[in-house]
Amino acid sequence: MVTECEKTSVVHADDVLVKVKRVGICGSDLHIYHGTNPLASLPRVIGHEVTGEVANTGSHVRRFKPGDRVVVEPISYCGTCYACRKGRPNVCKALSVFGVHEDGGMREYIVVPEKQLHAVSPDLPWEEAVMAEPYTIGAQAVWRGRVEKEDTVLIHGAGPIGICILKMAKFKGASVMITDLNDERLAFAEKNGADVTVNAQKEDPVLRVNEWTKKEGANVVIDAVCLPSTFETSIDAVSPAGHVVVLGFDERTVGISQLPITKKEVTITGSRLQTNQFPYITDLLNKGLLTHGGLITHTFSADDVHQAFQLIEQHPGKVGKAIITFD
Amino acid sequence: MVTECEKTSVVHADDVLVKVKRVGICGSDLHIYHGTNPLASLPRVIGHEVTGEVANTGSHVRRFKPGDRVVVEPISYCGTCYACRKGRPNVCKALSVFGVHEDGGMREYIVVPEKQLHAVSPDLPWEEAVMAEPYTIGAQAVWRGRVEKEDTVLIHGAGPIGICILKMAKFKGASVMITDLNDERLAFAEKNGADVTVNAQKEDPVLRVNEWTKKEGANVVIDAVCLPSTFETSIDAVSPAGHVVVLGFDERTVGISQLPITKKEVTITGSRLQTNQFPYITDLLNKGLLTHGGLITHTFSADDVHQAFQLIEQHPGKVGKAIITFD
Repeated sequence: MVTECEKTSVVHADDVLVKVKRVGICGSDLHIYHGTNPLASLPRVIGHEVTGEVANTGSHVRRFKPGDRVVVEPISYCGTCYACRKGRPNVCKALSVFGVHEDGGMREYIVVPEKQLHAVSPDLPWEEAVMAEPYTIGAQAVWRGRVEKEDTVLIHGAGPIGICILKMAKFKGASVMITDLNDERLAFAEKNGADVTVNAQKEDPVLRVNEWTKKEGANVVIDAVCLPSTFETSIDAVSPAGHVVVLGFDERTVGISQLPITKKEVTITGSRLQTNQFPYITDLLNKGLLTHGGLITHTFSADDVHQAFQLIEQHPGKVGKAIITFD
Repeated sequence: MVTECEKTSVVHADDVLVKVKRVGICGSDLHIYHGTNPLASLPRVIGHEVTGEVANTGSHVRRFKPGDRVVVEPISYCGTCYACRKGRPNVCKALSVFGVHEDGGMREYIVVPEKQLHAVSPDLPWEEAVMAEPYTIGAQAVWRGRVEKEDTVLIHGAGPIGICILKMAKFKGASVMITDLNDERLAFAEKNGADVTVNAQKEDPVLRVNEWTKKEGANVVIDAVCLPSTFETSIDAVSPAGHVVVLGFDERTVGISQLPITKKEVTITGSRLQTNQFPYITDLLNKGLLTHGGLITHTFSADDVHQAFQLIEQHPGKVGKAIITFD
């Protein structure tokens, strides 16, 4: 609990005090919660999908004033290493992720450097604003996969991240096939623009891709399931000159060889966090072109966060995105 | 043997009759020779590193006349599939490689479509012209790895392809570390611009890369050895936001996982043949900016081709590039 005294105390010159309003729960939060995220340091206040209202600003802050609505860009970086110089601060050698390497947003107030905040419209409902970060993850995967108009895209997994990727791929004008083991999730994906849905428990995704693309393969395969088997399937399913995007941190060895990578001159690429996607996403949200569209299925108060985690783990098929309110 | 009658007979409208002058021997030729190349169809006249003189031209041919010196771009493609539309005809779905899927250049005369020929200067020695194709392979690997000025580049293997890659990386202004098991090859690499050489039998390349780059990792790793172990080392040695380029057709499973690919947001990419590199390379050759510089160590007449193959296999450390003359 932040006291009235702390709220009104001096905020450092480049920082902004934000009253947290909504925080989304991500799969990676559950891993941190259980101590199984290989990147997080502990103990940790989790929460990196954060929106709130500016409460106070440091003396150098020019872009924000109290009352402004903001979303948090959860990465802090050095700006000088190789990755930063190449415009890839998301893999900066001194990377610190809000809610992973440093305390995050599941608390009433946070202090964030001005450069890690993006404005959203005063009219934008909190339930839309809190989706900014997950949508940037989808936009990053689509950017890493170089998805272009009329490309055929295979997405493994119709969970929240799969749906965010789907929506971003549709914005690029691609045709999308999406897989999952759960028919409810696939039905939701269809409502959100998927051109073809495949239940991978009932049908072989590689066979379906080959039928769908007349044996060419999918031009881009994005793996939001992140098991060794889905990585292997991705290499099988991708077309010559295609892209495979992986988002996972699974440490198990994958059964792939050089042959198909060279023969098809495939590009396999990791997609982690995001690079400069917040301006694109907040613009779409502010214009109403992008909404959660039913992806948020559950809302809990901060006191019930444990209950939220239990529900997600026990009924993954029933929960799209769950969010925590800090009103 | 082509008869005088055949030489002067009508060449199809878009084709060119070429008197072959020099043909280089590539490692992949040896695999075809032994029946172990997974892509080649048999029986086959091998030879895809070819230079010669125009002997006759079809009625539609405008760019060439008898006497012109040319090099062969050894890929034939449909121009309409996904890969071709994306500017990647080297992995066209109907790809036919000269000397691999169709008969190649190890014969006195060849008939080649005009669009697969590139002019070289009348002053350019045949020994330089015959290097055009291997240099395009180096240029492709460097392009696929997005090598830029001041990047740190690790090349596995200082054989002929490794040296071609080295020279192309140096043209981009990169710093290059190169590995091999053979000290003679490493000494040759040093003469050809390698900044650091590592005998991988005596030292651990990953440790040396970490020392060299102050623990950042190499920005680009290009694997011209193409074993499962060198692929694994490549992933370990690459920097965040870096590129790994593989050129091999090894079918054995590689011991890699998703974790480092996502964590470092690495791009792994195949490099096969070349895409639009001939104009760049022939320009460098014509201007004398690129020479074989001692890379060609052995020359055999067409009658002694079997002897050439034996020498390469029995003394790989002694042979740089061996070429066959058809004078």
